Amino acid sequence: MITLSSDFGAPYPAAMKGVLTTRTDARLIDVSHDFPRQDVQAAAFWLREILPSFPPAVHLVVVDPGVGTDRAALAVRAGEHVLVGPDNGVLIPAARELADGADEPAEADGIEVFEYRYDDPESVTFHGRDVFAPMAATVHEAGLGAFESGDRFGCVEACEDLAFPEPTTRDDGVDGEVLVVDDFGNAITNVPGEVLTDRFGEAVTVNGVWAPARRTYATVEADNRLVTVGSHGNVELAVNRGRGEERFSVSPGSRVRLRWT
Amino acid sequence: MITLSSDFGAPYPAAMKGVLTTRTDARLIDVSHDFPRQDVQAAAFWLREILPSFPPAVHLVVVDPGVGTDRAALAVRAGEHVLVGPDNGVLIPAARELADGADEPAEADGIEVFEYRYDDPESVTFHGRDVFAPMAATVHEAGLGAFESGDRFGCVEACEDLAFPEPTTRDDGVDGEVLVVDDFGNAITNVPGEVLTDRFGEAVTVNGVWAPARRTYATVEADNRLVTVGSHGNVELAVNRGRGEERFSVSPGSRVRLRWT
Amino acid sequence: MITLSSDFGAPYPAAMKGVLTTRTDARLIDVSHDFPRQDVQAAAFWLREILPSFPPAVHLVVVDPGVGTDRAALAVRAGEHVLVGPDNGVLIPAARELADGADEPAEADGIEVFEYRYDDPESVTFHGRDVFAPMAATVHEAGLGAFESGDRFGCVEACEDLAFPEPTTRDDGVDGEVLVVDDFGNAITNVPGEVLTDRFGEAVTVNGVWAPARRTYATVEADNRLVTVGSHGNVELAVNRGRGEERFSVSPGSRVRLRWT
Repeated sequence: MITLSSDFGAPYPAAMKGVLTTRTDARLIDVSHDFPRQDVQAAAFWLREILPSFPPAVHLVVVDPGVGTDRAALAVRAGEHVLVGPDNGVLIPAARELADGADEPAEADGIEVFEYRYDDPESVTFHGRDVFAPMAATVHEAGLGAFESGDRFGCVEACEDLAFPEPTTRDDGVDGEVLVVDDFGNAITNVPGEVLTDRFGEAVTVNGVWAPARRTYATVEADNRLVTVGSHGNVELAVNRGRGEERFSVSPGSRVRLRWT
Repeated sequence: MITLSSDFGAPYPAAMKGVLTTRTDARLIDVSHDFPRQDVQAAAFWLREILPSFPPAVHLVVVDPGVGTDRAALAVRAGEHVLVGPDNGVLIPAARELADGADEPAEADGIEVFEYRYDDPESVTFHGRDVFAPMAATVHEAGLGAFESGDRFGCVEACEDLAFPEPTTRDDGVDGEVLVVDDFGNAITNVPGEVLTDRFGEAVTVNGVWAPARRTYATVEADNRLVTVGSHGNVELAVNRGRGEERFSVSPGSRVRLRWT
Repeated sequence: MITLSSDFGAPYPAAMKGVLTTRTDARLIDVSHDFPRQDVQAAAFWLREILPSFPPAVHLVVVDPGVGTDRAALAVRAGEHVLVGPDNGVLIPAARELADGADEPAEADGIEVFEYRYDDPESVTFHGRDVFAPMAATVHEAGLGAFESGDRFGCVEACEDLAFPEPTTRDDGVDGEVLVVDDFGNAITNVPGEVLTDRFGEAVTVNGVWAPARRTYATVEADNRLVTVGSHGNVELAVNRGRGEERFSVSPGSRVRLRWT
């Protein structure tokens, strides 16, 4: 199986599928092609959340603001999964998560990174079609052995890493920030859900605004704010049947001062 | 085959696909993940229109404003199809339509409803991934027998039903309402097309606004209003190469007073 | 394999997939269902760009402002590919491109056009479901022989053609126009990239506005304009990590006066 992820919208992902179906019979599954444009951190977050639901697969990821520069093209082994994409950090958080979940023992943080030395592609602006899709097909058909002859290197020395911003614990709460906003308008923060789970039923303030802490959306009236813990395990600013980002006046990158009351 | 329908946008549907591909080799076909958010009636309408085009399949449907509450999780047998989703009525109109089309004799209205008693899922906000996708995979692999041991119950007594609002016939027309607006901007009403088909070539008024009744869009000039009968068999407010919802100033739920002239 | 292209948005494409999966086990791949609504030229452009990445396939295309009129339904053979869709020109530029790329010798411009004489379909507004999807399934299963008995005719005499507007060379530049805007906001013109490739590193003006000519986006600072050559081989008005259409104040159809400086 090959999964596909990008910030391409449509119809560019179809060109990648054409390349893939020309070279492999692998099953193709779209993760999303609507990741926020050229937002490497947001894509890294979503991949870390979504890819662990998949069985072993090759994951083709193209969120690549540096296309056409000399940034490397990587294949990252993580347990029984392989991620293929640009060397800008987008693959790494998901790779660590997938490696942790793998049955086989993993060295260091459990991922291995291979660089793919590609010839000049046909285009300098569409490496998804001309570099990464052929890489993914090769990895699916031939395995990573195709890249191992002298090109293998360890991640820590050589590849771009990506760390999500860390929240800060305060005496009376936590300071964090919004990582992404999902399509429901839920603002997902970097604050771990554990801080909230003992407080369900109580109230908190978010940037000075009062909101109940609840286990799930439908426990408040429609159009009412709440603070909850999403399926990703992080604190989330939400509105039952509405858009939390609007009612809490936040967007990706916004500061979130969470205070117990 | 398993079809997938939700109001999730992206990328949450991919997590469901990961769960499904881990558990079954079934073919996966997306119906839509862009149903109007948390609008059970709109999703019920679209499913009733679209699913009858499919061969026998398991239809996974997650439009679920009550996620995390104690609403039941259902598997509904309708002819050779099975629908899986929350007990909020979203499955029932499509199930009745699919049952009518089935070859085998059907008792009552031809559908059977099974409740799935699930253990506490990993998340309280993402039952699509943690409850309904595993259910759909189980139904696809093992059949409904997996649910039948004592959990079987009849719909009329036990499950949420959903009826679309009924239009009212007047001496000089029909009063109805807009059920959904499609991606072309066509406003689809609850008025059955039969009232219009004898009047093609004549004119009507809609909420006092004049419009010709026509069999198809291209019979009026570009940017001109018309009233027609869509593929769903209902009266539709449209603009040739434009958006009917805007030119008729309507949205889902709007009153539609259709008058003969 | 059958690819699907339309301007339907969602969920109408799923009805076509239901019809197709009822009639054939062909693999289904979406090209896009978000082509600009009823914009035959834009769809023709994208199909010509994207379909050549695919292996031999049946390509089902429904961008059809004339649905319900007496415009013909066509199957177009182009090399080892077949395109199925309405007779409004949308299929022809892609067909010529696919025919050029075919190994087998091609007569004339290498495409053959067959008309499909369909019975009155169930709906007059959803020929995608009721006419074109059944056609595509038939072509995939039975081949074009199904249409050849007396219905065959040549394109030049009989079918709608579509030519993109031609740019005009000036002493000090080129006059062209914007054909489409992609989902990144890049404004893709009808000016062939060859005029620009010798000028990378220099500057040009576009409608009087200064911009550097560059090989790729990331060679200018974020939020800065550039003029480049996209993967389609045409001159493109872009902004690194931003939307070129906005910063150059253009949209599909806009005049583009490109001048050397």
